[in-house]
Amino acid sequence: MRATILYGPRDIRFEECDEPKILESTDALIRIAVTCVCGSDLWPYRGLQPLDGPTPMGHEYCGVVEDVGRAVKLIKPGQFVIGSFATSDNTCPNCEYGYPSSCVHREFITRAQAPLLRVPLADGTLVPTPGIPSDDLLPSLLAASDVLGTGWFAADAANVKPGATVLVVGDGAVGLLGVLSAKQMGAERIIAMSCHAPRQKLAREFGATDIVAERGEAGVERIMDMTRGIGVDSALECVGTQESMMQAIHATRRGGSVSYVGIPHGVELDGQALFFGHVHLHGGPAPVRKYLPKLIDLVLNGKIKPGKVFDLELPLAQVAEGYRAMDERRAIKTLLRP
Amino acid sequence: MRATILYGPRDIRFEECDEPKILESTDALIRIAVTCVCGSDLWPYRGLQPLDGPTPMGHEYCGVVEDVGRAVKLIKPGQFVIGSFATSDNTCPNCEYGYPSSCVHREFITRAQAPLLRVPLADGTLVPTPGIPSDDLLPSLLAASDVLGTGWFAADAANVKPGATVLVVGDGAVGLLGVLSAKQMGAERIIAMSCHAPRQKLAREFGATDIVAERGEAGVERIMDMTRGIGVDSALECVGTQESMMQAIHATRRGGSVSYVGIPHGVELDGQALFFGHVHLHGGPAPVRKYLPKLIDLVLNGKIKPGKVFDLELPLAQVAEGYRAMDERRAIKTLLRP
Repeated sequence: MRATILYGPRDIRFEECDEPKILESTDALIRIAVTCVCGSDLWPYRGLQPLDGPTPMGHEYCGVVEDVGRAVKLIKPGQFVIGSFATSDNTCPNCEYGYPSSCVHREFITRAQAPLLRVPLADGTLVPTPGIPSDDLLPSLLAASDVLGTGWFAADAANVKPGATVLVVGDGAVGLLGVLSAKQMGAERIIAMSCHAPRQKLAREFGATDIVAERGEAGVERIMDMTRGIGVDSALECVGTQESMMQAIHATRRGGSVSYVGIPHGVELDGQALFFGHVHLHGGPAPVRKYLPKLIDLVLNGKIKPGKVFDLELPLAQVAEGYRAMDERRAIKTLLRP
Repeated sequence: MRATILYGPRDIRFEECDEPKILESTDALIRIAVTCVCGSDLWPYRGLQPLDGPTPMGHEYCGVVEDVGRAVKLIKPGQFVIGSFATSDNTCPNCEYGYPSSCVHREFITRAQAPLLRVPLADGTLVPTPGIPSDDLLPSLLAASDVLGTGWFAADAANVKPGATVLVVGDGAVGLLGVLSAKQMGAERIIAMSCHAPRQKLAREFGATDIVAERGEAGVERIMDMTRGIGVDSALECVGTQESMMQAIHATRRGGSVSYVGIPHGVELDGQALFFGHVHLHGGPAPVRKYLPKLIDLVLNGKIKPGKVFDLELPLAQVAEGYRAMDERRAIKTLLRP
């Protein structure tokens, strides 16, 4: 089969690889229905994260189970499944505490931008749908695998409550789905920071009530003006840079909550600034597995359409163009069909 | 009157000053019954925090109201009152949100190591007791003014829940009262980090079930051993250094909570370490005013005896010796009587 390998900055190749096999008795093999490119893939693509040689890419996936190891009890061949980017046994103390993405047996999925994928800890990691979903639902189900689950965690970790005023920093797919999640959780006012018209439009469609196009401290000032100088109740930091983190912290009220869900790159937090900022801070790898049953339900019942973040669809063989379009901000998120 | 002034590193003087007066119509004047030296006073005392010239000291106090400004409605002369180290109007959005220590009109109290103290925003800041309390209750009521309220916030901000496993980093008075607070909130296992026998003893008396004498990463390893490699549910960071903060974060389970209540000195938090640590982080100036009614109640009803942290009592005129004893760790906390 051919799969996606990153060789170095902006050097994505779709090339012949060995097909994955069942290696552990707890594995499943998935025939990928749709996969996609993640905002986090752009860090190494842009050369901002070191590579250990040629690196297989992709961690968002859904599809049909082709085979399972002999210890797999819950997942069956022929089922349509969605899994998280982090494997989990769903039974360890961290899983039980609600943090499957920090499962003591966690592995991070790679190699999902391919036709066939090995998923370790299949019983704990994968969630089947009732029957095989129709094709039009695939983008939204795929979104649940990471970008929706991560946006949902951003809203959950920022303690979004009914009636709250919420800020979303970052207009990538995670930020946009943070808007959708905050709306689902009952936020009254959702301020999205974005200076790109198509993303502003989608943010509004997902529930944003206000758009702030200013960035950095000018953006913070605008938000303070909009909140009587007090700040927002909850801020979702969906970028992972020092600038975005400080925007979120500075725009949040004393006692409010800031979440961060993008792997921080070069972020250093000053203890005294945090202390006098008086915010709650929570983040990390999103515990997507915990949310999957609920998110799949919302999608299948037509309550949410997170698949709208895919504004470019390509055959998997054109994955390199999928990366380029996102890198150049011509696309919010690229869906790939093997 | 004579009052306490810090002139420079280890140069505390008790010297003639002007008596405070009512300056604003919302002020009260308090005749101090007892006051004390705070762990945070030791930062400038040790030269670790720059001074802007001679600095009046002290921010923990209780006593009898001597006079009030004409806009003060709730507090009356003759009442015995306890106040927080941070003034608050108790009506602004931050106060209403539960963060009076970030009141939009906040001032930090200084000059409390003196016989007479001006307290701004008296109605919002001070809480009267029913009648004049007996002398034996004064240490515990004084503790409520800061060190107990701060330990209570440490436990509250670290989400201590009934049945929880809790770590307290720091065996100063705040840490010890963090132990007491965690116990009151129903923690099942309370691990205190301390290598000083008298403080270990008091920690046990306040409810610690385990003592860890190792420090730094060796201490973290011990705690991981004690918690099946998972970490504690809640960690209370009651020191304010990089080392203590990292001890607390590293010893906390994924999804657990870390609070920090001492002003951080030289603390820088790495974004990725926080991200993969997966902890909740919350701290800042303790909203003592919010807790005061409850804490005063617990003291007056004999439920808690936080005043035990005072293991040295001196006349206010000997305040310099009070600082020295704490600096040299001969005393946990010095109570001063004008």
